[in-house]
Amino acid sequence: MEPLLFKNIVALALAEDLSFGDRTTDSIFKDEVAGAEIVAKEAGVVAGLPVAKEVFSQLDQKIQFKARLLDGERVQPGDCLVELSGPAASILKGERVALNFLQRMSGIATAAHDAVGKVSGRGVKIVDTRKTTPGLRLLEKYAVRVGGAENHRFNLSDMILIKDNHIAGAGSIREAVSRVRQRCGFTVKIEVETATLRDVQEALDCGVDIIMLDNMTLSQMSQAVELIKGRALVEASGGVGKEQLEKVAETGVDLISLGYLTHSVRILDLSLNLHTLKTNPPEKEGK
Amino acid sequence: MEPLLFKNIVALALAEDLSFGDRTTDSIFKDEVAGAEIVAKEAGVVAGLPVAKEVFSQLDQKIQFKARLLDGERVQPGDCLVELSGPAASILKGERVALNFLQRMSGIATAAHDAVGKVSGRGVKIVDTRKTTPGLRLLEKYAVRVGGAENHRFNLSDMILIKDNHIAGAGSIREAVSRVRQRCGFTVKIEVETATLRDVQEALDCGVDIIMLDNMTLSQMSQAVELIKGRALVEASGGVGKEQLEKVAETGVDLISLGYLTHSVRILDLSLNLHTLKTNPPEKEGK
Amino acid sequence: MEPLLFKNIVALALAEDLSFGDRTTDSIFKDEVAGAEIVAKEAGVVAGLPVAKEVFSQLDQKIQFKARLLDGERVQPGDCLVELSGPAASILKGERVALNFLQRMSGIATAAHDAVGKVSGRGVKIVDTRKTTPGLRLLEKYAVRVGGAENHRFNLSDMILIKDNHIAGAGSIREAVSRVRQRCGFTVKIEVETATLRDVQEALDCGVDIIMLDNMTLSQMSQAVELIKGRALVEASGGVGKEQLEKVAETGVDLISLGYLTHSVRILDLSLNLHTLKTNPPEKEGK
Amino acid sequence: MEPLLFKNIVALALAEDLSFGDRTTDSIFKDEVAGAEIVAKEAGVVAGLPVAKEVFSQLDQKIQFKARLLDGERVQPGDCLVELSGPAASILKGERVALNFLQRMSGIATAAHDAVGKVSGRGVKIVDTRKTTPGLRLLEKYAVRVGGAENHRFNLSDMILIKDNHIAGAGSIREAVSRVRQRCGFTVKIEVETATLRDVQEALDCGVDIIMLDNMTLSQMSQAVELIKGRALVEASGGVGKEQLEKVAETGVDLISLGYLTHSVRILDLSLNLHTLKTNPPEKEGK
Amino acid sequence: MEPLLFKNIVALALAEDLSFGDRTTDSIFKDEVAGAEIVAKEAGVVAGLPVAKEVFSQLDQKIQFKARLLDGERVQPGDCLVELSGPAASILKGERVALNFLQRMSGIATAAHDAVGKVSGRGVKIVDTRKTTPGLRLLEKYAVRVGGAENHRFNLSDMILIKDNHIAGAGSIREAVSRVRQRCGFTVKIEVETATLRDVQEALDCGVDIIMLDNMTLSQMSQAVELIKGRALVEASGGVGKEQLEKVAETGVDLISLGYLTHSVRILDLSLNLHTLKTNPPEKEGK
Amino acid sequence: MEPLLFKNIVALALAEDLSFGDRTTDSIFKDEVAGAEIVAKEAGVVAGLPVAKEVFSQLDQKIQFKARLLDGERVQPGDCLVELSGPAASILKGERVALNFLQRMSGIATAAHDAVGKVSGRGVKIVDTRKTTPGLRLLEKYAVRVGGAENHRFNLSDMILIKDNHIAGAGSIREAVSRVRQRCGFTVKIEVETATLRDVQEALDCGVDIIMLDNMTLSQMSQAVELIKGRALVEASGGVGKEQLEKVAETGVDLISLGYLTHSVRILDLSLNLHTLKTNPPEKEGK
Repeated sequence: MEPLLFKNIVALALAEDLSFGDRTTDSIFKDEVAGAEIVAKEAGVVAGLPVAKEVFSQLDQKIQFKARLLDGERVQPGDCLVELSGPAASILKGERVALNFLQRMSGIATAAHDAVGKVSGRGVKIVDTRKTTPGLRLLEKYAVRVGGAENHRFNLSDMILIKDNHIAGAGSIREAVSRVRQRCGFTVKIEVETATLRDVQEALDCGVDIIMLDNMTLSQMSQAVELIKGRALVEASGGVGKEQLEKVAETGVDLISLGYLTHSVRILDLSLNLHTLKTNPPEKEGK
Repeated sequence: MEPLLFKNIVALALAEDLSFGDRTTDSIFKDEVAGAEIVAKEAGVVAGLPVAKEVFSQLDQKIQFKARLLDGERVQPGDCLVELSGPAASILKGERVALNFLQRMSGIATAAHDAVGKVSGRGVKIVDTRKTTPGLRLLEKYAVRVGGAENHRFNLSDMILIKDNHIAGAGSIREAVSRVRQRCGFTVKIEVETATLRDVQEALDCGVDIIMLDNMTLSQMSQAVELIKGRALVEASGGVGKEQLEKVAETGVDLISLGYLTHSVRILDLSLNLHTLKTNPPEKEGK
Repeated sequence: MEPLLFKNIVALALAEDLSFGDRTTDSIFKDEVAGAEIVAKEAGVVAGLPVAKEVFSQLDQKIQFKARLLDGERVQPGDCLVELSGPAASILKGERVALNFLQRMSGIATAAHDAVGKVSGRGVKIVDTRKTTPGLRLLEKYAVRVGGAENHRFNLSDMILIKDNHIAGAGSIREAVSRVRQRCGFTVKIEVETATLRDVQEALDCGVDIIMLDNMTLSQMSQAVELIKGRALVEASGGVGKEQLEKVAETGVDLISLGYLTHSVRILDLSLNLHTLKTNPPEKEGK
Repeated sequence: MEPLLFKNIVALALAEDLSFGDRTTDSIFKDEVAGAEIVAKEAGVVAGLPVAKEVFSQLDQKIQFKARLLDGERVQPGDCLVELSGPAASILKGERVALNFLQRMSGIATAAHDAVGKVSGRGVKIVDTRKTTPGLRLLEKYAVRVGGAENHRFNLSDMILIKDNHIAGAGSIREAVSRVRQRCGFTVKIEVETATLRDVQEALDCGVDIIMLDNMTLSQMSQAVELIKGRALVEASGGVGKEQLEKVAETGVDLISLGYLTHSVRILDLSLNLHTLKTNPPEKEGK
Repeated sequence: MEPLLFKNIVALALAEDLSFGDRTTDSIFKDEVAGAEIVAKEAGVVAGLPVAKEVFSQLDQKIQFKARLLDGERVQPGDCLVELSGPAASILKGERVALNFLQRMSGIATAAHDAVGKVSGRGVKIVDTRKTTPGLRLLEKYAVRVGGAENHRFNLSDMILIKDNHIAGAGSIREAVSRVRQRCGFTVKIEVETATLRDVQEALDCGVDIIMLDNMTLSQMSQAVELIKGRALVEASGGVGKEQLEKVAETGVDLISLGYLTHSVRILDLSLNLHTLKTNPPEKEGK
Repeated sequence: MEPLLFKNIVALALAEDLSFGDRTTDSIFKDEVAGAEIVAKEAGVVAGLPVAKEVFSQLDQKIQFKARLLDGERVQPGDCLVELSGPAASILKGERVALNFLQRMSGIATAAHDAVGKVSGRGVKIVDTRKTTPGLRLLEKYAVRVGGAENHRFNLSDMILIKDNHIAGAGSIREAVSRVRQRCGFTVKIEVETATLRDVQEALDCGVDIIMLDNMTLSQMSQAVELIKGRALVEASGGVGKEQLEKVAETGVDLISLGYLTHSVRILDLSLNLHTLKTNPPEKEGK
């Protein structure tokens, strides 16, 4: 992902934490240079290294940031993710912001990876939702991909998803799909949310691309899959937890969407450790 | 909290989700007006109602937003938090963004409330950290307060927190505190991170305001509290989980800081339901 | 379209024109109020009324803006589009910016409408491209819809379009489609650009959703349509001018994409006329 | 023109097109590097090379951008304007945005150059208007200069232009000029719009710097020029088309302002061609 | 001046002061409403009332702001400028920011008014410079006008001012003026900085609009005025202090530019006093 | 201070002055390179060198900026602060903005240094206030530190300052302090404004950290200091001028806050002189 796409959120995060300066660090450090590393404290999948790099790059061009891994690689406790060197004060100022991004994104990648692992070999895809943290959607959806799962639509513009309230507004699935087809163009796929097998049949008759089974029981899901017979992709949705993943996968659905991947993130624990520290001559540019 | 403080992050969240428009909703709805409500699907503490209000207000001034509760009140499954009325299309467009804020903030408030409950009556305060989601710190710290816990410092500017790397840089706790006192002014409190009882004694000798006990055992914490004897506030820190809260509280510390309150949030499940829907005559201003 | 989606470009346009104030108007007018109207000077299709409204709304909340038409309606020379009333100075300050938006958007809608008219009854859709004016894509694509044509993809994110350089990079159409299918998810439609009937066959074998015939002759297009037989949508693309529209439509393609709709716009001529002017008592808030 | 003045509109254009990433290119390319060139497909005058350079520079610092011409030089079909080399994916991502700027600006420069050519040797200047595309005024006025024409005022702040509505507000040309002289300062030139020879005489009596002849016939213009006798600059204005340019120039006016230069732009057709492509080893920073 | 032109700097100032909230006020006040007034503590000329109004308007729409004066009116100690009523907490939060604008702008207006008074009746104008506070130029130049003085150019774009370094670059005044005439267009006035009578003669020969006498003695200025004889405006410039104003005016120059008006402002002392305070029932929207 | 913290205000200042370009400089210069220096015209303390550097860096990366001093050093008339070399046009375009920052910040540092000098040896600290220029608080408070004085709180968030209106709202100092203690947390120091010795006693009884003596006479201040006996820091506040500094210091207060340091700045006079100028071959990237 190009830094262009996340440099604003990085700037926002730095402004939020730096505010009017790091008063502790600026009182204690002057021109010391340091070496440091970012280390895993638990096992998981890393995501967000280019974002962490951008944090330090915005703070101080004199910091060297060397990633030892690529996003998507697994780490074990103690593994080094990044080596940093440069002005000690700048490294310390960026520490928390860089870790806040990296821990959250790695937490998401790890959860995605775990979910994918639970259903592997069954031909089902794990996908995310729009239940992301405000302002971080791009990064969270990227982390989902890094973890091996796939992205559902990014926002309200890049796909049609006809939900219960839309159906109520149009009067029927048929009418809703018809309006979308008339007004919305040929570039987007159409998905319809269904609650019953009757809904599923109606959506199928409309020739939609994807049919979402919302909060159905396992047996309903199996019946729906049977009914659809590959004529549309089938998505299981609605509060599927880690425990139910395998069972849901067995119903034969094509996609399982998991809100928890992004709405209830557990971070991956990482830390930044300074390992060397020495003094440097000052430059003549003010302090 | 004044909308001024969060209207930018709300605008960012809306831009992220609306992108180039809600193509589903705009294909299906025209001038219908609707009534809707935001309802709790599980028990917890509500936080973020003014933020949800701001979401709908930015989207469409014609939406009426009536909160039925104040932030900080407890809800049970089925309780109504908010009643909405106005253009159906606008309500649907704001639904996800409003819920993304409200569920996250309520999740934090609920977790804070639970933690406070676990140590109630022991004269210890639960406090947060800077391990917040980039861009959302203000809202997350607000949610912590709504839940009954307190805020530790907001950022690198509003308090002095001398951590291990600072001490290493200065050479000793004494030298670090001395540099801060010289360069940093009379307006801020000083906290020092300590790892041993010896550190605690040194910090105490420097007359600091708060002493953080970092990753100490319960017995070390008790000894530290004994040593300090109220001459500074004592903060227990470092991976304290929900289960250890009571034990840590019993050591007599004044503050327990919990990273998980904001870095690993579990949302409070809420939903927005449309309950009425009718058509309205169009205005002459284009579509 | 919601004002949220274009209020930033409106603010930018106002800042660009107002700079440090309208020195002519501020020297001449004080508290006069005026009535004015925006009138068509030639025939065409109107688009952009909500944008013009936003211009005046950002300038001065005291201006009343009453649209006499909806976007998409046809006007004849002399027809009134909008009635304005309020502070004369504010109306004059917004005049140029409002017209710059309205004339350009109406020019696009008119051109789209003309193109659609030329192929009506042949089951072919006129669509736009990404050759839009930097910063105005959303408004220009909206104007295309208002004129009765359809939007092709909005940007690089909301659809897959595999072009010649992508095919060269992957080695073949087959390999390019395969990589997209692996890495890009189930939510987006896939279009492939083809230059020969062999390309068309290869794309067809890959089961893509849309096949673009790039700069083909009329006879090649007919052959391609024959070959595809409805198994994918067929798009004619590449420098199709107004004169060739009918001929291209006769080949049986489903879509004709026209860059000129947005890259070489001819405005629809409109003017704003003040018709009444009277003096008002000043408010006590400074000048 | 310094990049400082247009880097925001470039960032806006990139955000608009990249949205949440170029999904096609990111699926197909990894670390390939490419050589490419921007080539003219028709004859004209080039403008906007520094803007195109800024596009690629914001996207990826690893792209080398070498202009083979300076803005203002003429090109023939097949001429190379720019040579690019660097990451293939980045070049493809910037292609459309760079061309959208470059084609539009070159179209304006070409039209300006043509108009200037039509009146050459007659001592008359071709000038632009404020009928520019919202957000692009600076770039469009720059392109006008590149084409050899001159800029009329940039916005409502940098010159006084008393138009019919101002005259109506003040009651007379004399009163309008008098108010401007009193309130507006010594730094700006004053132009007055006139519709009749009587207006011209009144403006002349007020000693204004420039007199605009609005929508006058050729014979009225000649009379006005006669009357003014060099005591003010004379501007012909109001729907002057390419065909009338010579005739209007013969009337002896000093300036002819042409709205069409910027309000109804025909682009100059250019294309970006990749000519080499090879694979590169990845860097360790995530993908 | 329209709020559009200063709402960004007001937002910036509020963000700077409010940061993450007014912790004192939010701890003490809940729903009290108050009446307050802004009162002069010394005599002077008021400027900035619309800016102060914008401050409170951005903070809280429930605040009523009633100006008792217009910008440009004189106040005596104890005079009330503004009456405020609304939520006590909001009034207190905006107090400092509103006063910071109002005191500075009134200080500038007062200084301008004093300078104008010192030279009244001599046909000379007091004008400002570009030595303004970064970010506040528009407001400071407005305050200069409110005080009765005039604005010199606003920035590097709206007039030509050929200074010593430009003359050195071109080789001579003549060459510099010639380049400007060729490249810069007919819309702007040309001023030349001169250091000797010979420079003055050269500038005069070039037919420039304004001649600046830079750091000349009183006798040199008189000679220059004699030489120029009304064929150009004459500006005295360069460290003219309050004491020399009359003497400089007597030389017959048309304009005296004073950097100190904006670069070394002495504020006009004002204060905001709460005079009533009562409690209000809370709204149900969170705290 | 890191450039991150002031690059936005620098960008704002450049946009304000450059507007649509430096028309004088761009007409006269092409590719000349120059050497220049920034020189003191009077004695004082320098502050703002990193800000001046940022100005030129944003304008043109080809400018070399070499500071000959560090912020905080004293200069005499004629001393060189900075040596610049690079494109002559770019140096001239940045001159005014760089000087506007540097002169103002150096003026503040000089005033702070003078005030500190007046009370040296008495154990009293000179501190600033929130009476800063909107948008420049960070830079102005930095300049205060550079001059040797200390910063009072930065904004409404980083300390508690209970003023007269807060006390009125709460009913008493005791109640105000109690509410703050309950609601506001352990991280911030508490200061109370007092007008009488009775207030001082009440604040002292509440155990606050700092007691402000507002507008007290010298004798009241001495009594207050006596009363407090080191149990809280004592701040003298309220219109203390340069002349009273010594007398106030003699009363034994710990802190004297001076609004005039930032609200009524007298700049330090500096100038930028070009000393060499030569022509350079153009680059092929347009003009």
